[in-house]
Amino acid sequence: MNTSSIFGDMLQTIAERGRRLLSLGRQPLPAGVGDLERACENLISRRGEASGMALAGDILERWRRSDDDDRRAFMAMLLEKFGPDPERLERAIEAYREERSPRTLRELHVAAEPRRQELIRRLNLAPNGIATLVQMREALLDQKAVDPDLEAVDADFSHLFGSWFNRGFLVLTPIDWSAPANVLEKIIRYEAVHEIGDWNELRRRLDPEDRRCFAFFHPQLVDEPLIFVEVALTKSISGSISELLGEGRAPIRAEDATTAVFYSISNCQEGLRGISFGNFLIKQVVEELRRDLPKLETFVTLSPLPGFSRWLASEMETPSGALTDADHNSLTLLEHPEWPGDPKTRAAIEAAILPAAAHYLLRTRNQRGLPTDPVARFHLGNGARLERVNFLADPSRRALRQSQGVMVNYLYKLDDIEANHEAFIERGEVVAATAVKRLLRNDRSAPRVALQIAGNSQERETTS
Amino acid sequence: MNTSSIFGDMLQTIAERGRRLLSLGRQPLPAGVGDLERACENLISRRGEASGMALAGDILERWRRSDDDDRRAFMAMLLEKFGPDPERLERAIEAYREERSPRTLRELHVAAEPRRQELIRRLNLAPNGIATLVQMREALLDQKAVDPDLEAVDADFSHLFGSWFNRGFLVLTPIDWSAPANVLEKIIRYEAVHEIGDWNELRRRLDPEDRRCFAFFHPQLVDEPLIFVEVALTKSISGSISELLGEGRAPIRAEDATTAVFYSISNCQEGLRGISFGNFLIKQVVEELRRDLPKLETFVTLSPLPGFSRWLASEMETPSGALTDADHNSLTLLEHPEWPGDPKTRAAIEAAILPAAAHYLLRTRNQRGLPTDPVARFHLGNGARLERVNFLADPSRRALRQSQGVMVNYLYKLDDIEANHEAFIERGEVVAATAVKRLLRNDRSAPRVALQIAGNSQERETTS
Amino acid sequence: MNTSSIFGDMLQTIAERGRRLLSLGRQPLPAGVGDLERACENLISRRGEASGMALAGDILERWRRSDDDDRRAFMAMLLEKFGPDPERLERAIEAYREERSPRTLRELHVAAEPRRQELIRRLNLAPNGIATLVQMREALLDQKAVDPDLEAVDADFSHLFGSWFNRGFLVLTPIDWSAPANVLEKIIRYEAVHEIGDWNELRRRLDPEDRRCFAFFHPQLVDEPLIFVEVALTKSISGSISELLGEGRAPIRAEDATTAVFYSISNCQEGLRGISFGNFLIKQVVEELRRDLPKLETFVTLSPLPGFSRWLASEMETPSGALTDADHNSLTLLEHPEWPGDPKTRAAIEAAILPAAAHYLLRTRNQRGLPTDPVARFHLGNGARLERVNFLADPSRRALRQSQGVMVNYLYKLDDIEANHEAFIERGEVVAATAVKRLLRNDRSAPRVALQIAGNSQERETTS
Amino acid sequence: MNTSSIFGDMLQTIAERGRRLLSLGRQPLPAGVGDLERACENLISRRGEASGMALAGDILERWRRSDDDDRRAFMAMLLEKFGPDPERLERAIEAYREERSPRTLRELHVAAEPRRQELIRRLNLAPNGIATLVQMREALLDQKAVDPDLEAVDADFSHLFGSWFNRGFLVLTPIDWSAPANVLEKIIRYEAVHEIGDWNELRRRLDPEDRRCFAFFHPQLVDEPLIFVEVALTKSISGSISELLGEGRAPIRAEDATTAVFYSISNCQEGLRGISFGNFLIKQVVEELRRDLPKLETFVTLSPLPGFSRWLASEMETPSGALTDADHNSLTLLEHPEWPGDPKTRAAIEAAILPAAAHYLLRTRNQRGLPTDPVARFHLGNGARLERVNFLADPSRRALRQSQGVMVNYLYKLDDIEANHEAFIERGEVVAATAVKRLLRNDRSAPRVALQIAGNSQERETTS
Repeated sequence: MNTSSIFGDMLQTIAERGRRLLSLGRQPLPAGVGDLERACENLISRRGEASGMALAGDILERWRRSDDDDRRAFMAMLLEKFGPDPERLERAIEAYREERSPRTLRELHVAAEPRRQELIRRLNLAPNGIATLVQMREALLDQKAVDPDLEAVDADFSHLFGSWFNRGFLVLTPIDWSAPANVLEKIIRYEAVHEIGDWNELRRRLDPEDRRCFAFFHPQLVDEPLIFVEVALTKSISGSISELLGEGRAPIRAEDATTAVFYSISNCQEGLRGISFGNFLIKQVVEELRRDLPKLETFVTLSPLPGFSRWLASEMETPSGALTDADHNSLTLLEHPEWPGDPKTRAAIEAAILPAAAHYLLRTRNQRGLPTDPVARFHLGNGARLERVNFLADPSRRALRQSQGVMVNYLYKLDDIEANHEAFIERGEVVAATAVKRLLRNDRSAPRVALQIAGNSQERETTS
Repeated sequence: MNTSSIFGDMLQTIAERGRRLLSLGRQPLPAGVGDLERACENLISRRGEASGMALAGDILERWRRSDDDDRRAFMAMLLEKFGPDPERLERAIEAYREERSPRTLRELHVAAEPRRQELIRRLNLAPNGIATLVQMREALLDQKAVDPDLEAVDADFSHLFGSWFNRGFLVLTPIDWSAPANVLEKIIRYEAVHEIGDWNELRRRLDPEDRRCFAFFHPQLVDEPLIFVEVALTKSISGSISELLGEGRAPIRAEDATTAVFYSISNCQEGLRGISFGNFLIKQVVEELRRDLPKLETFVTLSPLPGFSRWLASEMETPSGALTDADHNSLTLLEHPEWPGDPKTRAAIEAAILPAAAHYLLRTRNQRGLPTDPVARFHLGNGARLERVNFLADPSRRALRQSQGVMVNYLYKLDDIEANHEAFIERGEVVAATAVKRLLRNDRSAPRVALQIAGNSQERETTS
Repeated sequence: MNTSSIFGDMLQTIAERGRRLLSLGRQPLPAGVGDLERACENLISRRGEASGMALAGDILERWRRSDDDDRRAFMAMLLEKFGPDPERLERAIEAYREERSPRTLRELHVAAEPRRQELIRRLNLAPNGIATLVQMREALLDQKAVDPDLEAVDADFSHLFGSWFNRGFLVLTPIDWSAPANVLEKIIRYEAVHEIGDWNELRRRLDPEDRRCFAFFHPQLVDEPLIFVEVALTKSISGSISELLGEGRAPIRAEDATTAVFYSISNCQEGLRGISFGNFLIKQVVEELRRDLPKLETFVTLSPLPGFSRWLASEMETPSGALTDADHNSLTLLEHPEWPGDPKTRAAIEAAILPAAAHYLLRTRNQRGLPTDPVARFHLGNGARLERVNFLADPSRRALRQSQGVMVNYLYKLDDIEANHEAFIERGEVVAATAVKRLLRNDRSAPRVALQIAGNSQERETTS
Repeated sequence: MNTSSIFGDMLQTIAERGRRLLSLGRQPLPAGVGDLERACENLISRRGEASGMALAGDILERWRRSDDDDRRAFMAMLLEKFGPDPERLERAIEAYREERSPRTLRELHVAAEPRRQELIRRLNLAPNGIATLVQMREALLDQKAVDPDLEAVDADFSHLFGSWFNRGFLVLTPIDWSAPANVLEKIIRYEAVHEIGDWNELRRRLDPEDRRCFAFFHPQLVDEPLIFVEVALTKSISGSISELLGEGRAPIRAEDATTAVFYSISNCQEGLRGISFGNFLIKQVVEELRRDLPKLETFVTLSPLPGFSRWLASEMETPSGALTDADHNSLTLLEHPEWPGDPKTRAAIEAAILPAAAHYLLRTRNQRGLPTDPVARFHLGNGARLERVNFLADPSRRALRQSQGVMVNYLYKLDDIEANHEAFIERGEVVAATAVKRLLRNDRSAPRVALQIAGNSQERETTS
């Protein structure tokens, strides 16, 4: 019951010191620290680590104050000076070749480990070190875009972050209107799907009793959500974002809800790109919600199709046979910017765009043989199924540009998640509701085998 | 101020679920899980990890319920089946020999990593996974004593624990009489130096205002201290444990204290053996105490000499010249079990045993060239100096057996810590107070060079 | 979600300062404080209260250090010097007699209020004032036993405590093995029904998953439970305390329990005697348990009959007709101290003692027309019904002395509570299960009217 | 250390249930509750209170849903039906007249207590009852303005609130940018002195390290601050609000501050009007700040003079001799709305308005013989001294209208507070700095005696 409280004060202390530390950049550094490379060598070479925390703190502080050039130089140094010791590695290879024993194998692994891994681990000794290390990688990702050699450095950051931000260390936390303002302002800042204009809009998303928000936190980054999801509790599967976010709507009682709609999922830390939390997040939120509101039966997303417009444009230019000629004609109407305002045009477009979207989601593949759409890949890879395609579900300018306003519901059914995931990962199948499949114009358009899974109401599509 | 509270509830949830999980061992496992090796292969092979948490939880649960034979088999499996992939490793070596590029180097490192590292990381996905992994290593250490090949497996556990229990992730927490009982019972259980008989004795160590206790915790192990130190606030350097722990003593006001005596440091988790926290603990506790009680000036331990009696016995048998003949004669009196009760005998022993202890601490070395006494190695390695040797400081049976009742004060002076540490690590010097050095019978007994460090009141002993 | 945390730190601060304050008794008081009466007059007379907190703290501190004689003098002073102002009261009575207006009425009420009420309110300004005021009343209750005039002073304390410890200000808190030790030691100390021998026994009562404990706290007395109840989760109504508290028993899973047995309720603060919390406690605990464990259906006590032996002794001496002659004979066997060990004697006693206990509970009344047994009055007054009488349910020496080992189950059925309570309060009825009523030897023994309440499975006994 | 945490969860539960309760107004009330008067009689008459919480909750719920007419009727009912029992009171008066004993006195006090006091106490049994009772009094204050008879009812609310919101029960809490949003929005809403436009402005007031904010909370009203004060840390006494609140300013380091400027104090709960917290607040905040930042030496307000313009207008119309003719002429320039923009006019006004303000503060008195200005009465009554009068310190439209832009610093010097307070309360003295006194045009304008207090750098003004 109360053990956790033991951390209340200390986590607070961590947070406070972290803030103070970051705000004290104005003070002059203690003199005589020497150059950074030497400091880094010191940090990893001293056996007893008598002053590891201070040394690490100093290096991080200097990095925080450095400009872009210095930061590039720092990363170049990590690449060139803090790889493995080549001679030790040669010796380890020799020894391994001579005798394949656990001992020689271990030495080979250790000798092949870039020395910067230990350096990064020791930088983490500093109070609030992890926060600066995440910023460091954010900068590194920018540099890597220019200098691909830095991939080797990034691999080491990624490896350590994957271990430190292991799901086992993350804390799922509900975020509501009584959450700290310094966390909430980050929800505003990081919302990546449906922008939050101001604090009043934030309140409309968090405070009504039919709204929920959950985030993953890391205990050493108490002010910084890692990823969060916004949820609407409803009485049916929502097919339109304005239905959910409209200003004037009347909230329902949480107890009356049957459906939870995950309408926005946002990663917060650019420096943690590629460290995946999303799949754990959704499943754990489903469990939290079910515990709290046992009447909830349906867990579904309302998701964008960020690649749809691009695909459609190319399909319009170079038809692949996915659309009928009539569809093609109707879809030229999309060029009129005011088409959503005209009922007749709208009807014509609806009839043609839904089959197009179904084709895009079910039949198109990227080079790795996975669905073209990144959001589809994410949810299908998590074991969701493609449940519904919604016309004009998001009429915002951005959505019209990206996806002609179409949105999709992916359904998370806990009992099917594992099977769906396996089908997707191992056989490339996109599990979809029959209604979505029926939208397809031409089921022969792709050389795929339809499988009927006995005892399962879902139908599966298999890629070749 | 309040951000930390966001975790209060969730950490609590973690703790509760952990306890529940561990208590649910009675339930039958879900059927059809298959054998453990297959489960482990599944856990690391599935790309999308749709059910990683469940799979990991299941494996850990099965391990928890297994008997000693099964646990040995499990570790043997980790050793034999979850090392690196030999063919991939051969290829990586070839590729690296052909071209020494960051890419081939990275592949070599990755290929040389035993697959069990990723397995252990994924086991940590399970709720409370880290607690079971620590227990797992505890069992592994026992097995390793019998089967040295398991060193390779242990190296992987050690490596990951070193990263996960990085100082940056630990939380220093004061423990007082208002701490949760389930934490306090562990203080009783884990106290390794001066046994705590019952809750009343615990209270005497925690509740008076001139007593303090601090522990490191890991946020995912909220009920389990990792290491703790007990502190007495006094008006002078204590030279006797009964002075500190006597039942009838009158506490002083914390504000009046000038000295903090660290009289007991205990590691709690056998499964984290070798992952060092102690050096960070003492230094951070010094800082906490100074912030809270600015009048404190002296930070000192009252420590046992666990190897002294053994060394003395051998010195008595085979004199090395460390003692005079008169000392030798006096020390034969130690054979009378009641010697502490007789003033005359006591005086004779005192005159001889203090030089012997000084010699033991200052002059004897183990094979690695470091002081023979493990406690001395720990504190001197942390940058403390040997301050005082105390006669009959602990008259308990255990202490008489281990060290003839002698105890030592090691002094932590923040400004000198780094220099002391460096002298010890790099040149093997034992920094000691003059008074201790003067106890030595024969300063020529060892081929060592005495250095006078200018501007420093300490004198240093250098090993050859 | 997090608003509460705002208090975490501050309540802690309160607690810490309180402890510090209480521990600083050794320091000399600031000089020149003057005598207590003058200090009290100052405290209530200063209009602006510029130094109310300091003055109040000083008075309380002086009281805490005073001996019994001084404390008696203090209470005498409150009685004699801090009653209402007699002249103002005369004037108020005159004014009211002349004109019965809201204004004169109000002045009459104010003028009749003893000045010590305001004094006590202002003493509460001091940090931790309420804790000392509760101790003050504890001393007052002792003095009142000797000097009945102090009833007037006690009435004022009672009045204010009733207002300050209003149910609306109390906090129901679960107490488990992770509760702070300084709270748990009070559970040991205050347990009034079934003594807790040591911390191991405490752990057996709190830690197993089929055990619960709840307490009321006041936010200003964070270390001090006001009242607590211990609960066992079982699969049937327990009729024996050893069944519940036996050392070797195997706990059941909380989820499997159908019944919650309240086997011990203890008031903690002698200084709050007469301020009733117990009725609220049980009902709220019932609600908490039902929320947490929806399968729980039956909520029942296992209670002592503290007055039974006394009544039985007088009935044996002067038979009232409640027992048959055979019963009478059997019950003389109680004089053999070893009777519980002999099966035959035990059987004879059981046959006679259960009717006697039923009579004692159902038919005997005190001077106010309520049941003789105080525990019966408490539970029946709360709306419970008398469910079962258990033979040799508590074989401890104390229980044998007080109640010949008999214990009773009172059943709390939420739907019936109000009706039962009303029947008891307004018509003196004791609601009991048929099985208990059937135990009565002679249903004509008392001039009571049996009522059958339509649509209710319970039968009621009405006092005349 | 951790005891407080025990309340974390429960206070949260209180808060959550409170919110839920208040949000469930849509549900139909349980049928058959009967009319409110009967419900109120039930609530205070039932001896055992078996269903007190439910009854109280129901009454409060009905009140919350009622309209203005019903609320007026409710208060009228409290006035007419829930006064003292007149017959019992007559008897009590008779008995007291016959015999003046503690017993008859007590009965007189009890009989004179309006029955609504017990009713209000029992309404507080309901979860979150206190929040509704505070709203109830807010409505009552409006009604009282129309119907003065309700003063009698208000006296009872005031009496109980004074007891329940006793300083001893309040919790001082720092409010910063990590405080819960639902508390912060109330800071925006309740700020009464210098309006907070939006969340960005709020952040500028809370987040910089040279800003602080503190509030009093009651443990049963966790979402609702009672009163709060905003503080700026500076290097000198600020004489201008724009200096403090300007957008572009650079914060100083908290450690460098020597002065704390209390620039805004706002009461939040209209329903607690007249229950004074402000005096305790400032003093306790001074202590908190000194503990946190030992370098702080000066504690000073920057306060408005809300009654100055009104007084000045009447002085201009009917000169009392406080101003010279030249002053009079200069001050007619205030009629030009753009005067602050013209340097020459500004200078002329400054020379005349400062003496006027000094006169207003030092010499004018209301009917009770206290300073005319309410803010002056508050701070001087708390023991502050009038330190400085600042020209054009607040150029906002509102400030120009109220006080011609003048603001005042009141200085809180802990060592002098008691003496200042006493001088003010008992002798009507206004303690002021010499510089302020020197501003007076005509020191003979009022028949006051200047006292030189030996050993004190302050000079005091005494009213006649």
